[in-house]
Formats: sequence, C-alpha cells, structure tokens
Amino acid sequence: MTQKQWGGRFAGTTDSRIEHFTESISYDKRLYRHDITASKAHARMLARVGLVTADESASICAALDRISSRIEAGDFAYSTALEDIHTHIERALIDELGDLGRKLHTGRSRNDQVVTDVKLWVRDAIDELDDLLAKLQQACVSAGDREQGVILPGYTHLQRAQPVLAAHYYLAYVEKFERDRERLRDARKRVNVLPLGAAALAGTSLPIDRHAVAADLGFVDVARNSLDVSSDRDFLLEYVFTLAMVSLHLSGWAEEWIIWSTTEFRFVELPDEFCTGSSIMPHKKNPDVLELVRGKSARAVAALNGLMILVKGLPLAYNRDLQEDKVALFDCHDTVAACVQIAAAVIDAARLRREVIAERLESGFLDATTLMELLVMRGMPMRSAHEVVGKLVRLGEERGCRLADLPESAFAEAAPGVGSAVYEVLGVPRALAAFRSYGSTAPAEVERQLSWWRDRLAAG
Amino acid sequence: MTQKQWGGRFAGTTDSRIEHFTESISYDKRLYRHDITASKAHARMLARVGLVTADESASICAALDRISSRIEAGDFAYSTALEDIHTHIERALIDELGDLGRKLHTGRSRNDQVVTDVKLWVRDAIDELDDLLAKLQQACVSAGDREQGVILPGYTHLQRAQPVLAAHYYLAYVEKFERDRERLRDARKRVNVLPLGAAALAGTSLPIDRHAVAADLGFVDVARNSLDVSSDRDFLLEYVFTLAMVSLHLSGWAEEWIIWSTTEFRFVELPDEFCTGSSIMPHKKNPDVLELVRGKSARAVAALNGLMILVKGLPLAYNRDLQEDKVALFDCHDTVAACVQIAAAVIDAARLRREVIAERLESGFLDATTLMELLVMRGMPMRSAHEVVGKLVRLGEERGCRLADLPESAFAEAAPGVGSAVYEVLGVPRALAAFRSYGSTAPAEVERQLSWWRDRLAAG
Amino acid sequence: MTQKQWGGRFAGTTDSRIEHFTESISYDKRLYRHDITASKAHARMLARVGLVTADESASICAALDRISSRIEAGDFAYSTALEDIHTHIERALIDELGDLGRKLHTGRSRNDQVVTDVKLWVRDAIDELDDLLAKLQQACVSAGDREQGVILPGYTHLQRAQPVLAAHYYLAYVEKFERDRERLRDARKRVNVLPLGAAALAGTSLPIDRHAVAADLGFVDVARNSLDVSSDRDFLLEYVFTLAMVSLHLSGWAEEWIIWSTTEFRFVELPDEFCTGSSIMPHKKNPDVLELVRGKSARAVAALNGLMILVKGLPLAYNRDLQEDKVALFDCHDTVAACVQIAAAVIDAARLRREVIAERLESGFLDATTLMELLVMRGMPMRSAHEVVGKLVRLGEERGCRLADLPESAFAEAAPGVGSAVYEVLGVPRALAAFRSYGSTAPAEVERQLSWWRDRLAAG
Amino acid sequence: MTQKQWGGRFAGTTDSRIEHFTESISYDKRLYRHDITASKAHARMLARVGLVTADESASICAALDRISSRIEAGDFAYSTALEDIHTHIERALIDELGDLGRKLHTGRSRNDQVVTDVKLWVRDAIDELDDLLAKLQQACVSAGDREQGVILPGYTHLQRAQPVLAAHYYLAYVEKFERDRERLRDARKRVNVLPLGAAALAGTSLPIDRHAVAADLGFVDVARNSLDVSSDRDFLLEYVFTLAMVSLHLSGWAEEWIIWSTTEFRFVELPDEFCTGSSIMPHKKNPDVLELVRGKSARAVAALNGLMILVKGLPLAYNRDLQEDKVALFDCHDTVAACVQIAAAVIDAARLRREVIAERLESGFLDATTLMELLVMRGMPMRSAHEVVGKLVRLGEERGCRLADLPESAFAEAAPGVGSAVYEVLGVPRALAAFRSYGSTAPAEVERQLSWWRDRLAAG
Repeated sequence: MTQKQWGGRFAGTTDSRIEHFTESISYDKRLYRHDITASKAHARMLARVGLVTADESASICAALDRISSRIEAGDFAYSTALEDIHTHIERALIDELGDLGRKLHTGRSRNDQVVTDVKLWVRDAIDELDDLLAKLQQACVSAGDREQGVILPGYTHLQRAQPVLAAHYYLAYVEKFERDRERLRDARKRVNVLPLGAAALAGTSLPIDRHAVAADLGFVDVARNSLDVSSDRDFLLEYVFTLAMVSLHLSGWAEEWIIWSTTEFRFVELPDEFCTGSSIMPHKKNPDVLELVRGKSARAVAALNGLMILVKGLPLAYNRDLQEDKVALFDCHDTVAACVQIAAAVIDAARLRREVIAERLESGFLDATTLMELLVMRGMPMRSAHEVVGKLVRLGEERGCRLADLPESAFAEAAPGVGSAVYEVLGVPRALAAFRSYGSTAPAEVERQLSWWRDRLAAG
Repeated sequence: MTQKQWGGRFAGTTDSRIEHFTESISYDKRLYRHDITASKAHARMLARVGLVTADESASICAALDRISSRIEAGDFAYSTALEDIHTHIERALIDELGDLGRKLHTGRSRNDQVVTDVKLWVRDAIDELDDLLAKLQQACVSAGDREQGVILPGYTHLQRAQPVLAAHYYLAYVEKFERDRERLRDARKRVNVLPLGAAALAGTSLPIDRHAVAADLGFVDVARNSLDVSSDRDFLLEYVFTLAMVSLHLSGWAEEWIIWSTTEFRFVELPDEFCTGSSIMPHKKNPDVLELVRGKSARAVAALNGLMILVKGLPLAYNRDLQEDKVALFDCHDTVAACVQIAAAVIDAARLRREVIAERLESGFLDATTLMELLVMRGMPMRSAHEVVGKLVRLGEERGCRLADLPESAFAEAAPGVGSAVYEVLGVPRALAAFRSYGSTAPAEVERQLSWWRDRLAAG
Repeated sequence: MTQKQWGGRFAGTTDSRIEHFTESISYDKRLYRHDITASKAHARMLARVGLVTADESASICAALDRISSRIEAGDFAYSTALEDIHTHIERALIDELGDLGRKLHTGRSRNDQVVTDVKLWVRDAIDELDDLLAKLQQACVSAGDREQGVILPGYTHLQRAQPVLAAHYYLAYVEKFERDRERLRDARKRVNVLPLGAAALAGTSLPIDRHAVAADLGFVDVARNSLDVSSDRDFLLEYVFTLAMVSLHLSGWAEEWIIWSTTEFRFVELPDEFCTGSSIMPHKKNPDVLELVRGKSARAVAALNGLMILVKGLPLAYNRDLQEDKVALFDCHDTVAACVQIAAAVIDAARLRREVIAERLESGFLDATTLMELLVMRGMPMRSAHEVVGKLVRLGEERGCRLADLPESAFAEAAPGVGSAVYEVLGVPRALAAFRSYGSTAPAEVERQLSWWRDRLAAG
Repeated sequence: MTQKQWGGRFAGTTDSRIEHFTESISYDKRLYRHDITASKAHARMLARVGLVTADESASICAALDRISSRIEAGDFAYSTALEDIHTHIERALIDELGDLGRKLHTGRSRNDQVVTDVKLWVRDAIDELDDLLAKLQQACVSAGDREQGVILPGYTHLQRAQPVLAAHYYLAYVEKFERDRERLRDARKRVNVLPLGAAALAGTSLPIDRHAVAADLGFVDVARNSLDVSSDRDFLLEYVFTLAMVSLHLSGWAEEWIIWSTTEFRFVELPDEFCTGSSIMPHKKNPDVLELVRGKSARAVAALNGLMILVKGLPLAYNRDLQEDKVALFDCHDTVAACVQIAAAVIDAARLRREVIAERLESGFLDATTLMELLVMRGMPMRSAHEVVGKLVRLGEERGCRLADLPESAFAEAAPGVGSAVYEVLGVPRALAAFRSYGSTAPAEVERQLSWWRDRLAAG
C-alpha cells in the first residue's frame, strides 16, 4: 500500500519534482487543529449512524488527540511525500490504529474535508480580527477622550477646509472600522454553513448525518448542494475582501500620519520606539511602521486579486488550482491582523502636538464657510454668500491677514447690513462652536458620539 | 459671476485643457435623476426648518421637475465648462429661478451631495441586479425541470468523477447566485445610510434636519460622522466586489459550456442565434457569447482592483481622485448586468444533447466510488476499499471494459465474500440511484431541492 | 446573403440582444484608418501574386479611400448588426464594388486582420506617447534651468534627509521618463512584426506574399508561426504595462506636489487656472489636476490587470474573450496620454516658492550627513562618526538649534581634534557645496547633467 | 553602542512588536551572497580612492568571505533585532574586525546598498530563467520532432477550425517563450546599471569612484541621478511583469492540456508519475500538475499587481513601503521558475495519443477552408466561396457526413464547373498538404521552422 491516499489505481510512483511542486504541507500544516476537530466530529457521527462502533469512534478521537499533542509538542515529522496535513494526520492515525484508522475517511472526501477545515479556520480568523478591530476602535475612542478640546484643521484635497475636533477625527476611523466589523459579521454567516458530507462532489450512498456534524461543530446550516460545495470558495474571497478593506482604511490613516510626522506639519509625535533611523543619515527618525502599514495594503489587495484570478474560468467542481487559495488567505490574514494590532499600539502611544497645531490653526481660512452660513442665515442666497466670502478671502490673502482681522467696513461693503455680527463666528474656535448638525463636529455632538461609542465598545 | 460653483476666490479662468481633464459630465450625467430626487428632498427639508419658505421649496421642486423632463426629452445642453451633472442642474435652476435657485445648495456640499446621489444610484442598481439574478436562478430551476432524469458525468479536475443529475448541476449554480444575492442584501444595508448633511466634512452651523431627509429618501439610517462621509467609498467598493463575484461565477459556467460545446464533448446545443461564425472558415459555429461572458469577468475584477488602488493611501477627507470611482462603477455594473441577462437567455435557449451524453456515460468509471462505498457498508475499512476498487479500475482499463463488465471472480478475488451484490450498484444509473445523503444528487433529494427553490423563487 | 461575414452555415438569425452583447463597433471604429491602410496593402499584394488583377486592386484601394473619406466626414452609418469596423468597411466595399469587394478578404481572416490593425494602432500610439514623454522631459529640464540655484530639502520617508538642488530633483523624473521611453522602444520591436497572412490560425493554401505586405506597411519582420499569431496579445499587454509604469511615475510626482501645495509645505505655487474650488467652502483652492493624475494611475494599473486576467487560461488559438482587449487598451492609452500632457503643462506653469523653501531650509538637520562624512575624512570609522553625529543632533534638538549653532566645544568633545573645520560644511548651502560624487547633487555635477539632457533632447 | 545601524539619535529602545513588524531578515537573508559580493567591490574601491588602506580592504574582504562561509555552512545566527541581512553582515564584520568593520559603510547608504544587492540578485534570476526557458523551448522542439507527421485539429473558440501539424503546435509555444526571453534581455539592460554610490539620495562628499565599482561588478552603466536611484524600483516591476507574462503563456498551455486530458478529448497521455489521485474516488487520475501551473499564474499576476499598488503615489525618495518589494519578487520568481521547469518535464514525458486523435480527425469539417480557397483559386470571389462552402457544410451536417463524402453533384450545384477537383483538397490529410504560406502549417514550412529552431537553440 502506498503512502498516498489514492495509490491503488497507479502503476508508477510519483516523481519527486512533482511531489515538491504539488505539496501543500509546508503551509497547510497550520490547519492541523481544525482538521482534527472536524475529524473528531466526523468520527462521532460515524458512530451515531453505525458506520463505526462507539468504541471505534472513541479510539479514533483519542488517537487524534494524541496526534494533536505530538504536533503541538513539535514531535511530528512532516514529509512532502505525504502532500498535505490531511494525509499526514490520516497516515499517523493508520500508523497508530491500523485498519481502524482506515475507516475515518468513510463518507467524506478530501474536497469537503479541506473546505470544512478552512471554514473552521476562517471562522476563528474572523473572530480574532473582529476582536483586534474592537481594540483598535477602543484605542481611537481613548485618543478622542485624551485629546479633548484639541481642534485640528480638517482637510479636503489636503487643503485646509474646516476645523474639526480631534475626537471627531478619531471617531471617523471608528466608523470605518465598524463597517469592517459589520462586513466580517455578514461574511461569517456564509462561512458558517457545513460543507462536510458533500464528499467528492455528488454526496454519498452511505447513511451519514450531516446535521449532527453541523451541530457538533457549531455550524448554523448545512450546505444544500454537494456540487456547489466542491467548487465554492466564495467565503474565502469574501473574507479576504474584508481584510483588504481593513487594510485600505489603515493605508489612508498611515498616509495621513506620515504627512503629519513631517517637519512641515509636526502634528503628531511618535515615540522613539515606534521609529527607526537611517544607516547613513545620523539625524533621521523615520515613521517606518506607518509606511509599512501603508505598503502592506498592497499585499492585501493583491491577495484578493490573486484569489479572483485563481477562480476565474474554473468549471465545476473541484480543480487543483484551488490549493493555492490558502497561500493568499494565510498571508493576507497574518498581514492585516499584524497591521491592526500595530495601528492600535501606535494610536495609543502617539500624542498630538497641541501647541504646534494651535499655532497655525488660524492659517488657511478655516472659518470661511461658517461666515458664509451666517450670511445665509441672514437671508442671502447661499451661492451669493459663497461668492461674497470668496472675495473676502481674496482680500485677506492680499493683505496677509485672517478674515477676523478684516475691518468691519470690508464686511459691510460685501454684505450690507451684516454688521459686527460676523466677528461672532470668526476665528477658528468660534467657527467650531457654531456647528450644530447631527454628525457634525459640534462639541456637544462629538461628546454624544464619544459617549455612545464608549458604551457600545464596553458592551462588547 | 462665473459659471463654476466656486469662482469667487479665483483671479484666473480655468484652462480649457484643465476643464477637459477634470470634467465628469461625460459620464456622471446618468446620475441626473438621482441628483434631482435628492435635491427635492433637500429642498423640502429646507422649508421644514425654515431656511426657505414653503413656496420657495415648491418652486424649486417644480423647476427641478422641469429640468428633469428636459433632460429626459434630450432638450438639455451639456458643457465641459460646467464640470459635472450637479453643476449643470444647479446652473439650470439658477437660470430659471434666479436668486431662489442660489438657495438650494444651502447646508450641503458637493461632497455629500455626490455621495448621496451615487448611493441612490447604487441602491437602484442593487435592486436591478437582484432581480436579474432571480431571473437567472429561475432559468436554472426551469432547466432543471426540463432536463428531468438526465444524468451528467460530474467532474473534478475536469476528469469524470461521479454521476450527477442535470437538475443537481443547475441547482449548484442557483446556490452560487443565491450567495451573490445575500451579499447584495448585506451591501444594501450599508448603502442605505444617508450621507447628506455631512456637508464638506465637518457638518454645518445651519439648523438642518438630516433625519427628515433620510425618511424622505428611504434611507434607514443617518451617517454618524461627517468626516467619515466625506471620505467613504466603502459602499461602492463593496457593491463592485459583489459584481465581481457574480461575474466570476458566470466565468466558470461559461468556461464549462464552452468545453461542453466542443466537437469532443457535444453536451450542449446552443441555438444558431446565440452563436457567430468565422470570416474565413465557412464551417465554424462559435460560442462567442459564452466566451465574452467569460472574458468580461476580467473587466469586473479589474474594476474592483482599480477602485481599491484608487482609495489606497488617501488621507481624510474628500480627494479629487475619488471622481474616478464612477467610471469603474458604471462600467462594472453595466457589464455584469448584461452578462447576467444574457446568461439567463442562453440557459433558457440551450438544450442538453441527451443522446450524446448518455452514449458515453459509462466511460470513466463514474460508479467506482459507489462500489467502494458498498464494500465499506460490508465492513471493509474505507482506505482498503479504496485500494481494492482502484485495482479493479486498473483491471477494467487494461481490459477496456466497465466495472460492470468484470466477471464476478474479479470482485471475489479483490473483496472476498462480496459476491454478486456489486452488480446492484454498478452501471451509472444504478450508482446514481444509490446516493442518499442530504445535499447529494440522490433523485429524491434533488426533487426536494428543486421544489424548495421553485417555491422560494415564486415567493419572490 | 446575410449582412454578416459568416452567414452561410447558419439557419437562424442572430438575436438582437446577442448582437448588442457581442458588438465592438462602438469602440473599434477608431481603428478605421488602420484597417483601411492594412487592407490597401493586402489588396496590392493580392495583385502582385495574381489573386486579383492590377485594375481590381486599384479599384479596391480607391474605394477604400472613398470609404475613409466618408468616415472622416462623418458620413458613414454604423450598426450593431455589422458587429465591428472590419465588417462595416468590407460591407461598404461590397456595396460599392459588388463581387470585386467580395475578393478583398482572400487569404486573410478577421483574426490576423484585427491583430494587424491593432498593431498599426499601437505603433502609432507608442510614437505619440514617446513624443509626449519627450515634451514632459523637456518641461522638467526647463524647470531645472528656471530654478537654478534653488535648494530643496530632499526627503526619505517624507522626513528631511539631505539638501538637493531643484534641478537635481527635476532630473530625477527625467530619468524615470527616459526608462519609460526605453521600454516603449523595446516594446515597439515586438509590435513591429507582421501578423497578416497567418489567416485563421494555420496559414493559407493561397500563394500570398507576406514579406511584401510587411515591407509595404513598414513592419521589420514577419511573424513566424500562424498559430501563435492567432492567440498572441503579448504586444498589447506589454504596451499597457509600459503605460502603467508611466502613470505610476506620475502618481508619485502628483502625490509629492499635492503635499507641496499644502498650507504647511507651500513649496509650489500652481496658477489659478490649474486649480478648482469648493462648492461650499469659499476659500478653497484645490490641486484637483494633481489628484486626478494620481487617481488615474489606478485606472492604468487596473487596465493591465484586466488584460492579464483576460488572457489567463486561454487555449490556442483565437478566443472571443480577446475582443475585450481593445476596451482596456484604448482607455489606458487615452488616460495616460492625457496625464502626460497635463503634467507637462503643470510643470511649465508652476513655480517653486523660493522664499518659503529657503526660510525653513535649516530645519531638519539636512547637513548632518555631510558632517559625518567630514569626520570620516578625518579618519573616524563611518559607524563611529554616525554615532557621534547622531548624538550631536540630539543635542541640537534639545537646545532647539542647528548643528551650525552648536559651540565648538560640543564638537571637540564628540570628536576630539576636529576643531572648527566642522563649520566649513555646516549650514545647508555649505553642505550642498560639499557633494562631489558622480550622479550626486553637487552643483557642477548637476550642471553637467542638465547640459547633457538639453543636448540629448534637442537631438530628438 | 546599539545593535542598530542608526541608534545614536534615539533615546528609547525599539519595541519588540515593532522589531517583529518591521524586520525583513526572515526573507532577505537569501540576498547574503549578493550583499557580500557588492560589499567586497565597495571595499576594493574604498582602497583605490584612499578611504581605507589596501590592507584594510583586504582584511574586510577576507572577513566577508569568512562570514559568507559561515552562512553557507548554516553556522550564522539570525535575529529580528538586527532587522535585515545587511545589518547582520555588517554587525558580524564589526564583531570580527572592530573599528575596521565600522569603515565598510563609508560612502554608501542602505538605500543604494539594498538596490545594488537586489539588482545583482535579479540579474542572476534573469539568467536562470532565460536558461530554463531555453530548456522549455528545447522540450517543445524535441516534442515537435518526436510527433513528426501527427496532425492535430487546430481550434479557435475551442471549435475545430483547421488541421495543424503537431510540430506547428509546439512551435507556437516556442515563439511565445522566445518573446519572453527577448523581454528578459531588454529588462536586463535596465537592471545592469549601478546604483551604488547614490548613497541616501543626494550622493556623497567623499571621493568615491562609482565607475570602478560598476566595472568590478559587471554593470555596464552607472545610474546618473542619485535621487532617482533611491526611489527607483522599475527594474523589479519590469522583471516581475516578464515573469507574469511567462506564467500567462503557461496558463494557456496548461488549460489546453487539461482539456486534452479529459475522457472526451484524450489527446495527450500523462505518465502516472505526473498525476495524482483522489482520496475518495478510486478511479481518478488527475492532471494536478497542469492545474497548479494554471493556478499559479494567478499568483504571478497578483505579485505584479501588488508591486504596482506598492509604488503608487510614493513621493521621492526612498520610503519604507519598498521593503515589501522583495516578498513579491522572491515569491514570483520561485513560483514561475518552478512552473517553467515542471512544464519542460511534462512536455518531455507526455505523448500524444495518435490513434485517438486520428480517429476523429475528420469530424468538424477541418478541410472546409481549404475547399473555399480552391474555389477562390478558380475565380470565385472569396465571400461568395465562403457562402457556398457554408451551405455545403450544412448539407454535410444534415447528412451526417464529411465534405469528402458529398457527391460531386452537390459541389457542381454549389459551384458550377468546379468538378471533381474538390476531392483533391478534401479529407484532412489533403487539406493539410495544400497549405503553402510563410508561417503556415505546410509540412515543408514546419520542417524549415523546426530546423531553424534546432540550430538556434543549439547555438545557445
């Protein structure tokens, strides 16, 4: 009997170059725990329906536990000749139990077995990532609390636009990560459907009980069509899409903070331990961590792209191309999970440079829009008010002064009758205080949101 | 006053090369209906909170309706000097109403206006696509009904694996499209959150009522953070991801049917009107439609890729890069919607070549696994049974015969005691009849599934 | 006789949905000029080998010229029923010439005809882009001349690193565009090989003379294998790769200038006519053109990605999927060509804000590395010198002063014996003057490079 | 003194999570040989210009050789605290030589050092891949020789089109791989330009001799602009593009052979040792190797995509994002090199099933085009002949016979006067013999091409 699971039909032996080219044990061994979990549930079901005895099932489960312990202890030999983790574990089982070990694969195929294992792994991965994102949200909320009262220039087109509270800024990212978490929850529903029992592609003539296995493994539903199961990698692409979205959110934040770390901006101070230096330039302190967070988004997006290319144009049902899916899945999860963790640590450790920010807050006419809205409240059509304030800004630029520094006559000429009321909304702090709409940077609104998020995150 | 919405501050005029380079009117004009819908809701809200009078609001809405009619009638002039559809419509409004028209943009910015319009468009697009997918599922269920009793070879690795009922085959795709529809539903939840009122990025000091606008436009929630809104394109990427998944499902089906259309397979007959010929080879009848369905998946995947690259590394909040999002969005939706429609038409019109399929059904040992399962039922460990049947297959190959044609002695030698029972599961029809697991190709199981889907699709 | 080129074998007529789905005339009509050029060369060859008479060939060529004139005059009707530009032109020819028109397609297929047309188009596109890139290089060289003597902070990790001359900065981009031009030249070699005469896939039994056609059309070689021709799109992917590289170079430059346009940097002044404003914020002046240049790189990269996905897994020879190639090709070329043109205009029109740059040039320890190198010249091991200067930088940071402002005693303590010589390289202008290596920012070196490029670009 | 190359300026120590997040030693250690080669050339140059003595240079080189030996012997400890291979080697040098080791980094930065190392690595990789491609071409030419006289159906749209000689088929792939090799040669020119001496970004004030280093390392040119060098990854993207093109060529071939391996086609026989079986289905023999070759093209295309996303929007000069480049580079090279090797082995070992192919060669009207060309030679306009033969094909289909089996009367009616001459080109062998154009599948033409390639490949 050969080492492979499928030797009977073959005359020749597998070429060793081929073994090397086709193996997946080098990366799928990290599925061992999920493979053993699924196999134990399968064995228990086999006993329930009488395909093995209760004793046989118990022996198989005990042996699988011993194999698991050996793997965890590092006392397990891997070989490319045994292809993948599934073959390794079944072979070890047969080595321990002889003919009894040969019964485990009853009523299943590697096709449904692999998908089951990967789904169990992805379910754990989703839960881990959700937890990491919650911690990152918490770091943002804490930073919002910490930077209470700090006003930042808000940007569009990287040009100064309107003032925003630092807490409002941090909460914008909390919203983004919340959408990521929602997507994870939605993706999890489709992960949580049992493939096992679809067998190779058509199901089986054996009296298996798939619903029992689903209950045992915590799957909330059982896949309805065996042919679909054998070809379906939707759940995996959807998870990797979700990861890519997380990494894209982080890439924008990292970009922003790289810019904020420049000599020219100096908005944020990263502790030395989060930076690295230059091999040649003795004075450099570089925000490498942020650059890597930005750069690694490329890896996440490429992983999704690769998976989509992989499944393009594949006929039903299983095709060996799909073995490559785990390479992209594992790398993408590890990459994005590490970025989320590091981002939380960076946000916890960083401090806004309040004095530097405050010093230049009055540059860039951040109060212009609020002035315009004042004119609107006084009855001037919005477009006309826009035009009027635009001209006042030009005047300010020519004179090198703030709007607040223009004389009342300038306002009177531009908007007859407005009088000195304009000064009540000019200057950034006054402009900020004037906001009032739902979701705006109005101080009371931001405090309400902060409090809402504090409660929500505390509730888990 | 300039034509632009923002001319007041500017001394120079815009360079015409720049106008051409930055315009979006050539493609965003298709948003006109959604822009007008959103503007009318905005105008009604402005009246409700007293920023305009009820009469003014009514006049604005009436004028917007007239503009809509002109656009629909083709009686509306476009100009790259007016940048985008939003400017065109506001300009037309001002041309009609003068100062009153200048009031519409009160309490909003183009940033939140555009996102609102696009969300309304995507919401419609999702509903349209969901409907098209339901029709495609219906076509598959009808095909399953039509091809009752037809047995197909099921493939893995494009090698004959096990027999499946044609209906089972069609239902596998129904499952895939159902997951696509679930993803659409999930994505729709995140589309259906009102951005309007976030204004440029910080909200507004005017007393707007965003919840009223949300109710008016059918949004179920109001975006919580204005800064997030101004930078958020998640909903758009998520929709395009969903489209890409649909197109990948179609690409696999198209590939399969291209192979099925070959002289060598001849499983499926496409009517002449779905094929095209060759300019040089008089005998050719090519499945071009299927090839284009397959090829267009590349366009959908690339659209998603492009959108992800677009948002990579963008700091808060709005950046003009985002204007490009609509190019990919519109093209991807149009492409995939067309493919879904054409796929339904092809499936409706195509017929399986029953006699050709049946003729070679006994090639490829499709009953081997069922034989193995019989031995398992008789107590042989599964791995041993696999080995035994593997050897019987080699024997069949050497003799050029089916398993069913091997003499009883061959079985007796391979599996002592099994006797003539083997012949009860040999031959493809008998092997197929032996299936029984949930989700399998067992005839009763497939009938149950067909019936379930018929009911479900009829229920809408 | 049907309208199609291939109707004889078909019983049914084409479904109009199918016509719409499969048509390419909406985008391939821009190939008309190249199609006619290739057809005329083909017709001349047919006469040369006796497949048509000299008179017939002349009549065909004259009729093709008339068709060309009609198309250029806008006096030509397009119809999706006629699929593509090739069918349109052949149909128009038959309408003019009757049976003689039916002879043009002798010895060729649409497969090789389309590839020939597209190759002619790409050859022109390459030449156009090469010319645009030369103009962009010229704009950079002129800017280098214009900004003579201006010292910029050079950045790594967006942190101030070392001083560089503005001309050195501009020449860095000249180098990048030069590599792009080299890649264009290399790609052109592979474009410039004649496919025509490969016919459908196997060649022809007619006595055609492919080398004559190649000479006529300016191709330097003739494709050696007909089966390869019918499936080959390498030349197109390679050109689009080259375009994507150009756009990535531009994306980095655009990013840089967006950052340089901020209130915080203020390094560069863009004229009003290259900027746009905000619909709500009256004070905004946004670098939209730069943002779109950056954003459009996503479109170029996605075009390449789409083309690669398109050809993945296609068996020999022609498959209809390939029709989609032109959509990506045309869009990518148009997009990148527009960006290159606009970039040259921006660079011509922009001015560095010399006083703003100079004002803060001494921030960020740009002279630290030169000081370190001085210590190395005095015999200190480089790593030790790096350590010593690192500590001096910390001292400067603590005292809030430049290295040049530290007292001699600080240097004496850190590097015994170095004395007052340090002041000869401290301060950014002195540090800059100290450079000397080939390719460095040393003033003489930069002048040499500027002059070399001036000559090279003048030579064409 | 810290372990890092840049500790002097820093107060804190690096966080261990950060060390783990930012390290590259886990994958860049494979650059050790190229790093040592470059460092030795750098040390020799330092002696030549007097920055170290000849003895010092010799000591450094000898120590580097010892370090190299230790690494090769597995006797070298790696630590994430030391970041990358460059730091490891320099640290080991300092451990051996003390202050002398501290001199090696004189006049260079890690920025130019890394690019130099990677260019040396890519140059070797290109040469290795070129060699592998030559071997693959040789395998194709040998297969063409071996299958002399075998006629295959040629396909377009996967529909039978025209007959081609097996050798013609194999040579089509030789052409594709030849273009890949040309692209490698072109890319190599741009790799082969020395970056070293660009230092951090601005060059150096030390009297280094870059041309001497270039000559020593075999670079044919020296990079002209230091700022460009520090940001340039063009060469790496171009190489990965070339790899992706190779993998796409292989994906098409693999797809084809997967189809050819089906029960329905049975064109090719893969030896058992190149196939694998099924864990559940005892009869399966799957072409896994081909499927993985096809699937791995997704990985190569995604690697290019990831690299393009990585460099998108990066300002000058070096940014830490670029560290990620090597992950994609190494994985893509390893993946594609393995595929090229395995493809050559598969082609060597596979045999066409001549009898199966021959048996059905007359299906599918492969001779129809040749018949049409005969009518053209007899003076019928090509389009009319196309129509006529199309109708004859319909007749054949209705009667279920070949064209050759139609009675002379059928031809006489369709094409008056053509007589029995038609039978001279009907039947696939006669149709094949009729070809004559350059590059066609005409037997003499194919023999000429085979011979040309044999000579060319033998010449190296």
